[in-house]
Amino acid sequence: MEQQINKRIILVKRPQGFPDETCFKIVESPIPAPEKGQVLIKTKYLSVDPYMRNRMNDVKSYIPPFQLNETLQGGAVGEVIETMSKNFSKGDFVTGFLPWQHYTAAEEKAVHKLDPRIAPVSTALGVLGLTGITAYFGLLEIGRPKPGETVVVSGAAGAVGMIVGQIAKIKGCRAVGTAGSDRKVKYLVDELGFDAAVNYKTAPDLGKALQAACPKGVDVYFDNVGGDISDAVMFLINDSARIPLCGQIALYNTVGIPTGPRIQPLLLIHHALVNGFLVSNYADRFEEATAQLAAWIKENKLKYAETIIEGLENTPRAFLGLFKGENLGKQLVKVG
Amino acid sequence: MEQQINKRIILVKRPQGFPDETCFKIVESPIPAPEKGQVLIKTKYLSVDPYMRNRMNDVKSYIPPFQLNETLQGGAVGEVIETMSKNFSKGDFVTGFLPWQHYTAAEEKAVHKLDPRIAPVSTALGVLGLTGITAYFGLLEIGRPKPGETVVVSGAAGAVGMIVGQIAKIKGCRAVGTAGSDRKVKYLVDELGFDAAVNYKTAPDLGKALQAACPKGVDVYFDNVGGDISDAVMFLINDSARIPLCGQIALYNTVGIPTGPRIQPLLLIHHALVNGFLVSNYADRFEEATAQLAAWIKENKLKYAETIIEGLENTPRAFLGLFKGENLGKQLVKVG
Repeated sequence: MEQQINKRIILVKRPQGFPDETCFKIVESPIPAPEKGQVLIKTKYLSVDPYMRNRMNDVKSYIPPFQLNETLQGGAVGEVIETMSKNFSKGDFVTGFLPWQHYTAAEEKAVHKLDPRIAPVSTALGVLGLTGITAYFGLLEIGRPKPGETVVVSGAAGAVGMIVGQIAKIKGCRAVGTAGSDRKVKYLVDELGFDAAVNYKTAPDLGKALQAACPKGVDVYFDNVGGDISDAVMFLINDSARIPLCGQIALYNTVGIPTGPRIQPLLLIHHALVNGFLVSNYADRFEEATAQLAAWIKENKLKYAETIIEGLENTPRAFLGLFKGENLGKQLVKVG
Repeated sequence: MEQQINKRIILVKRPQGFPDETCFKIVESPIPAPEKGQVLIKTKYLSVDPYMRNRMNDVKSYIPPFQLNETLQGGAVGEVIETMSKNFSKGDFVTGFLPWQHYTAAEEKAVHKLDPRIAPVSTALGVLGLTGITAYFGLLEIGRPKPGETVVVSGAAGAVGMIVGQIAKIKGCRAVGTAGSDRKVKYLVDELGFDAAVNYKTAPDLGKALQAACPKGVDVYFDNVGGDISDAVMFLINDSARIPLCGQIALYNTVGIPTGPRIQPLLLIHHALVNGFLVSNYADRFEEATAQLAAWIKENKLKYAETIIEGLENTPRAFLGLFKGENLGKQLVKVG
């Protein structure tokens, strides 16, 4: 093997507010040997996602917190390099929830095989993985967009956001995004076909900029970010608006309880709905979603972007970059 | 006729913050004569409701604002004293949206007949009217309580709240209410069968008091009040909680945009739902609701309370009393 040592990344400190690289440490351990029913996987890609920030806090949530001095983990793609399972062969590409390390001995049931002929294997962590599926069900099942309606998505240049906006277009809606740079705004409109996009960092008056972008108000607000951007969108919602809550990245690093304008009076006046949805509620329909997303890609109706950092040791930096808006589309780590 | 003059109440000033009696004025006009297809109604009961506070502001909402120097209006019950319609006879009791005045000439389609043998006619404004129907659909359609779950209702001693808690009990849930006096708390538990009730004005720590009342957390929060009480409940919600938003009476008199803890992070962590619902969305099922509510009353499973003030001239006082918690159950004005 190229590498004789298994490097892995552990959480050594729970962050207060913004995390930094001192929360993480690279340690070395022996390469594990697969037992019966296991496969030895060489990691190829790691997914870093905003929700992981919440797992770094020691609080109860829908997913247990990361443990101190334990290896972090998340969505990953790897190659089977040794097999003790009849269901997998050497050379198979697999995906699953795996630790941030070079080599993992995984139970055969913990991973599933990828077909590299359908799409590049990295898409199993993005558009054809949980981020694409999240966009699909969050928009279609909670947002329920109707042709002619206006769909606003925050974090529109992120992995979930850019899929949401494009599905909105496919469904005949006006798609409006918010993003944090002129490059991203241009990409959303010029490359992905958004009807409008607003740079929330440079707009002199975010509310007015959004109002100009949404002349008929907002029927669906797919919220990835929370905070000030969501406040501005909320004042534009139409009657019976639907607000799928997917993320609140602007608040994840807040210390204490974030405060802001109360949204309940607006929800009441507009008899609107907010739903913090859980993608795993749709687990029995994941194949429907990935099949549809793959078909749209093939029909050239759906594009995706990946931002790739190389090297396991750069995984914390890739993760921290999410909170600085460094990624366009899906942020991945390509593990050497 | 007993009264030769038609007294009516007009809005003379839009309130800033808490309204007071100077916003209203009693004026006199001639008693109208019914035209073809109309009935002349002598008002018996007027309903005063918290939502009317919003109609006093000059803002767009699901219902247009009251106009300055025009007669206020709302749910009412009256008796037909002259008829120019084949569908109504003298002596019929009717209900509809009517002005705050002694005598109204109404289109036959604007009112519908009541059967005083089924229930006292005043219930058409409360438990068998929009308040009961609101409780019914808000709880059952948005809240979707399951047996064994905990349902919290704020404003529990109000017209909607007390019905919500009792339906929760009928559905096999733990029912917990908040109210603003020991008398109300005692009434909810001793008379209506709530499992627990919390006096939010005297509880030394509202969060702890609610936690003690909800040892298994909160699955459904039927929100009539908003503000601090809702903040405290929100920290107790369970995964997949449902929050029907019915009212925000604590905020209706706020000047400017009320602020408070952001609820989106909690909704996200608990993949919970908030829905500001509009009872008129269920208009085609109102009869189902009133039939069921009437049946529960007959079976002695559902009780209701009315607080009655006498005299048209006291309608503003009855309305203002809603914001001071002066009513137990439905606040009505009995018009002499």
